[in-house]
Amino acid sequence: MSAESIKITLPDGTVKEFAKGSSAMDVALSISEGLARNVLAAEVNGELRDANRPIEADAALKLLTWTNDEGKATFWHSSAHLMAEALEALYPGTKFGIGPSIEHGFYYDVDFGENQEFDHSHLEKIEAKMLELARQKNEYKRSEVSKTDAIAYFKEKDDEYKLDLLEGLEDGSITFYQQGNFTDLCRGPHIPNTGFIKAAKVLSIAGAYWRGDENNKQLTRLYGITFPKQKELTEYLHMLEEAKKRDHRKLGQELELFTFSQKVGMGLPLWLPKGAKLRERLETFMRKAQVKAGYDPVITPHIGHKNLYVTSGHYEKYGADSFQAIKTPNEGEEFLLKPMNCPHHCEIYKSKPRSYKELPVRLAEFGTVYRYEQSGELHGLTRVRGFTQDDAHIFCTEDQVKEEFIKVIDLVLYVFESLGFENFTAQISLRDPENKQKYIGTDEAWHKAESAIIEAAAEKNLTTVTELGEAAFYGPKLDFMVKDALGRKWQLGTIQVDYNLPERFELEYTGADNQKHRPVMIHRAPFGSLERFVAVLIEHCAGEFPLWLTPDQVAILPISEKYADYAQELYKMLQAEDITGFVDHRDEKIGRKIRDAEVKKIPLMLIVGEKERDNNEVAVRRHGQGDVGTMSIESFVDFFAKEKAKSLNIQ
Amino acid sequence: MSAESIKITLPDGTVKEFAKGSSAMDVALSISEGLARNVLAAEVNGELRDANRPIEADAALKLLTWTNDEGKATFWHSSAHLMAEALEALYPGTKFGIGPSIEHGFYYDVDFGENQEFDHSHLEKIEAKMLELARQKNEYKRSEVSKTDAIAYFKEKDDEYKLDLLEGLEDGSITFYQQGNFTDLCRGPHIPNTGFIKAAKVLSIAGAYWRGDENNKQLTRLYGITFPKQKELTEYLHMLEEAKKRDHRKLGQELELFTFSQKVGMGLPLWLPKGAKLRERLETFMRKAQVKAGYDPVITPHIGHKNLYVTSGHYEKYGADSFQAIKTPNEGEEFLLKPMNCPHHCEIYKSKPRSYKELPVRLAEFGTVYRYEQSGELHGLTRVRGFTQDDAHIFCTEDQVKEEFIKVIDLVLYVFESLGFENFTAQISLRDPENKQKYIGTDEAWHKAESAIIEAAAEKNLTTVTELGEAAFYGPKLDFMVKDALGRKWQLGTIQVDYNLPERFELEYTGADNQKHRPVMIHRAPFGSLERFVAVLIEHCAGEFPLWLTPDQVAILPISEKYADYAQELYKMLQAEDITGFVDHRDEKIGRKIRDAEVKKIPLMLIVGEKERDNNEVAVRRHGQGDVGTMSIESFVDFFAKEKAKSLNIQ
Repeated sequence: MSAESIKITLPDGTVKEFAKGSSAMDVALSISEGLARNVLAAEVNGELRDANRPIEADAALKLLTWTNDEGKATFWHSSAHLMAEALEALYPGTKFGIGPSIEHGFYYDVDFGENQEFDHSHLEKIEAKMLELARQKNEYKRSEVSKTDAIAYFKEKDDEYKLDLLEGLEDGSITFYQQGNFTDLCRGPHIPNTGFIKAAKVLSIAGAYWRGDENNKQLTRLYGITFPKQKELTEYLHMLEEAKKRDHRKLGQELELFTFSQKVGMGLPLWLPKGAKLRERLETFMRKAQVKAGYDPVITPHIGHKNLYVTSGHYEKYGADSFQAIKTPNEGEEFLLKPMNCPHHCEIYKSKPRSYKELPVRLAEFGTVYRYEQSGELHGLTRVRGFTQDDAHIFCTEDQVKEEFIKVIDLVLYVFESLGFENFTAQISLRDPENKQKYIGTDEAWHKAESAIIEAAAEKNLTTVTELGEAAFYGPKLDFMVKDALGRKWQLGTIQVDYNLPERFELEYTGADNQKHRPVMIHRAPFGSLERFVAVLIEHCAGEFPLWLTPDQVAILPISEKYADYAQELYKMLQAEDITGFVDHRDEKIGRKIRDAEVKKIPLMLIVGEKERDNNEVAVRRHGQGDVGTMSIESFVDFFAKEKAKSLNIQ
Repeated sequence: MSAESIKITLPDGTVKEFAKGSSAMDVALSISEGLARNVLAAEVNGELRDANRPIEADAALKLLTWTNDEGKATFWHSSAHLMAEALEALYPGTKFGIGPSIEHGFYYDVDFGENQEFDHSHLEKIEAKMLELARQKNEYKRSEVSKTDAIAYFKEKDDEYKLDLLEGLEDGSITFYQQGNFTDLCRGPHIPNTGFIKAAKVLSIAGAYWRGDENNKQLTRLYGITFPKQKELTEYLHMLEEAKKRDHRKLGQELELFTFSQKVGMGLPLWLPKGAKLRERLETFMRKAQVKAGYDPVITPHIGHKNLYVTSGHYEKYGADSFQAIKTPNEGEEFLLKPMNCPHHCEIYKSKPRSYKELPVRLAEFGTVYRYEQSGELHGLTRVRGFTQDDAHIFCTEDQVKEEFIKVIDLVLYVFESLGFENFTAQISLRDPENKQKYIGTDEAWHKAESAIIEAAAEKNLTTVTELGEAAFYGPKLDFMVKDALGRKWQLGTIQVDYNLPERFELEYTGADNQKHRPVMIHRAPFGSLERFVAVLIEHCAGEFPLWLTPDQVAILPISEKYADYAQELYKMLQAEDITGFVDHRDEKIGRKIRDAEVKKIPLMLIVGEKERDNNEVAVRRHGQGDVGTMSIESFVDFFAKEKAKSLNIQ
């Protein structure tokens, strides 16, 4: 045993001494036993490693637990091995392809051989076997293996997939991991032992070609997920159920918000009347907020000369993979569907000489842009071929960047909070300081803009994550990651500094010094796109939109044909008060009318019969809550105004 | 002299007997001498003829005067001959091409030969000569000429253009007209004599290739106009001056409403902030009116699969002459920029089964469409390559057509009157009853729809003009012709019945009989396109928009820097009341600020100095009218509300 010691630096900066060869687990134990029970893996000098692997020299150490993305990934990767062990035990002769962790859980591609029948009915058996093996608390043992020995091992097992993988590996870099009776070719790291895994679910099976090539054999892909606590699995499965119910494609159809037509084209949404009303309200809401914040509206065409995008650089970057150019019958002109609004806004900025006195110029447009996506990539409203950005471009001086960022953050927070999104973080993407040549713009300008963003985010008390090297080549940015009601994260609003387009379009303003200067350009879109935002909103509120936003706010339900006239008169009166909805004139029982209005998630039902008609009243019922009481029409208008204000969720 | 008599039927149905060989002029004289003095030509059994040409058999006769379009056209055609006579007298050896009447006046293409110098300074000399010849009251004499004689005549004159024209004519159909010393190859008809022409103006000269072919020689085109009264010419020239001042391209730039960029592309307007605000207000106004009228908004993409337009028939009709198809990088799909919104709306109609109970379905969209126009055809906002229609499609039963027409007419009248257009006629375009096979749809359906339109127009007391054979092949229509402040006519709103698309898209509804039926489709657009409408509106009101519509309603003018804070505070208060405008913070004298606001046609100027600040007041000034008085801010808000309501021009 060596008496030498090494220095371990923890993320908070404290430095501790340990005997050389101590493991991350030893460090964890020195802090607390509770912590040690939770350590899944470690980051040693930035490299992911097994928690129990000896550390031989001074090192920076980060202990990884379930709360870290890397900890979770290790847990799920180890779970893939556990599932493989269970499969080998249940179906001897199974051959294994690859088994990585994914965003939620893991999968393993396996070849059950020709004689195996395998279907969904087997999934529970596998889960039980996994848990049985987990309870054995088998250690994940790492060993370095020579290429010859590794090939010999998988030749013995007759596993052509692992042999195929081995072909691509260098001798000296090959490691095996073994837990219980199962050995896998794997780079690791893994969790200490299978006992950490307390809950397992095999979620689904699918087909997958070996190495993703359809000329190869199709393997069976098993998707699974595991958790350190049974309760977490239960919650996750509940969330999946909820997500399925809230799927915006399903609700979008049920609530008649939007549709797609093969004839118009995939990925090109048609907004139905209710969806269009909802979208109009969102637009009106944003328009008002933007007027207050000093934005000027502009409207630009959906096409532009090809040369416009050659100037902007978009053509060089996306040309070949996008919708192709639109030719004209003669004159040889070529146009492109606009993939972005910025070039058009640059041309508006350029339409007259600008002085520093009029900066910042803030040009806003609900601009519909078109980007080609493979048909296989399309998904409801979240991945489409045409979408409308709540776009704006701010042209300002370098000194104005911070103040403009603060103003945009204010606007974004106002929008999110108004719509009931209260849980979000801001991701600040900066330059890679080691690779400054990758970016355009001067060092000084970058420094100024990055500091401005960081300071603005701090002043607005945003919870931030900072990512080095994630900035675009044209400037740093701040993205908003929003958590929805199910805890799922969505990237919504974005604010980006751009040094590139002002250069390419040769934008200028005359400064106080009477000299020409380049303005800085800021791109920003609080919703991102209306399509994507509405999709997230549908799933967030399960289709029960806030009263101010919902397309049909009231359903007027006459008890019978006799009260149809009163219902219609009421409808007109409410319409004049800007209260929207419809009269259910069908010849149905009132119970049925109420049930149908509930299914449609109409927030307020106004039931009218003899008493109501004679007294100019309405009997009010609330979606999911039942009777509110009978009141005069004037009182209802007041009641509605109050409820609507409340629903806007801002003080 | 023959004793035989003929029967002449006048437009009001009265039948009179005349001696065979009497002329239209004889008929006019039999009615009144005053009438005879005004008769310019005649329509005999539908054929245009000289007023003094003998009528040999029973005939339907319409006397044409200056109040008829055909009368005016004859007058101007004869004036072209008069101008030619003047030119021949002033510039012997001049050769003549063609000289037709046009919408306003006439032109003649002439070849002055190589030795002639001709420029604008000669125009007055020509006018004087025309009037001198007019005063001679020379008769326009018609003669039938053999082709041989005609060729001989123009060979003698060495006029290669007339000889070229003669080549295309059949012997036996050739006529000459002679007045004074000038003889022309011409089909006629003409006015009785040159004395009818009392005022003449040669407006402009331009180049024009013989037969419009740039391989031919370029001739000089002289545009002219004449009138039966000097006063009418004076008024016309005044109108031209006014129109020049009101040109929407000039005002659009001065008022910063819109611009064009070569880089974005010709004919693709970029709406600047003030223009975008104005357009947003028009859209909001129309949106509200449409909600009240029972329309549902929809939003559809600006492209569609090529097959969508193959189905609709648009591809076959416009494909080759339009923007060409947009290809995709793979998957072999082809898309087209949408030239119309109807196919998309048909797909929305088809997105669910429809019952007669839900008809009419009214789908409205501010849909931007793209149509290729030759660059030479482009003109400001009136002829563009991309424009936004205030489009809607009504899907209804045959029995609902009349009621829907009445409702659309109500909406169109409401819109026009709100915007100060009070002078319009409705043109009803019906089928050609002699060529029924040209149209699709059953005889019964056409009869029903045409009657519905005629009855609807009559019930709404519209001034109508009915045109047989002017219907589209897919259905009859009603177009609104609007007169602007200068008396110029513009075709704006349109309402069209369509039997074609419901057939091509196989649209259906289930009737009360539980059977499937085809709905009728009505296209309608009150503005037509926002671009064109805004252009007409700019010229109609000379850029002085009604208060409710104008982008900047107030200009706040602090007398000096000291009152800047009060001005800014005032601005925020007015913004909260939805009163829009700006503060003129420039370091300029108040007189200059007022003058600049006047130039920008800002309706209300609020001047603030010490007294106003101390008393929370504003000194109000009105564009073109001067001081209104000083009032408290609250009083101004009331004053503004009243002025705004008045400006909406409806009770």
